[in-house]
Amino acid sequence: MAIAHATPGQAIDIRPAAADPDGARTVALFKSRDLEVMRLVLPAGKALPPHKVAREITIQCISGALAVNTAAGRHELKAGQLLYLDREAMHDVQALEDAMALVTVALP
Amino acid sequence: MAIAHATPGQAIDIRPAAADPDGARTVALFKSRDLEVMRLVLPAGKALPPHKVAREITIQCISGALAVNTAAGRHELKAGQLLYLDREAMHDVQALEDAMALVTVALP
Repeated sequence: MAIAHATPGQAIDIRPAAADPDGARTVALFKSRDLEVMRLVLPAGKALPPHKVAREITIQCISGALAVNTAAGRHELKAGQLLYLDREAMHDVQALEDAMALVTVALP
Repeated sequence: MAIAHATPGQAIDIRPAAADPDGARTVALFKSRDLEVMRLVLPAGKALPPHKVAREITIQCISGALAVNTAAGRHELKAGQLLYLDREAMHDVQALEDAMALVTVALP
């Protein structure tokens, strides 16, 4: 679990290595004082149920495609796109295809 | 400058469109309450001089290659890698090749 202990300045591969047993599941790449970055892995058709986070977040699609549903509407993200969400914004995330995303969370 | 006014939930292309006059320079993709995300464009051989930021940041290389120099050493980043830096960490950034990066800043 070296990647769970990534330290400042350490280069972290956004996509998992082929042999990485963590490659098929959601993992935290690091969590520090102000920021946490997770790699979200969501197979096609799966979803994260509605939830919210205290501070702002970004969701960056790195492969596949996602839909992020908020009170303001449905937002589709393809690989190479990101969006941000307001503090406390209730949202769910659906994988339109097998999808991977980087989620960056501002910590309170 | 629509991208400078990206709103919550709006899909933002990480790489600039070919016709985007902002594609060749560093721009803020959005700045909100807790987070700011910039697209850093740095031609090969160019550098950002040493500077520091109040809160933690991530630097994600999206094309080319960068070196990030801190008191702890030199950290090379290829496309598809990211690192984070501590609060107030003095650092410079050198483009080893024509490089683009996403810089996410936690705001105080």
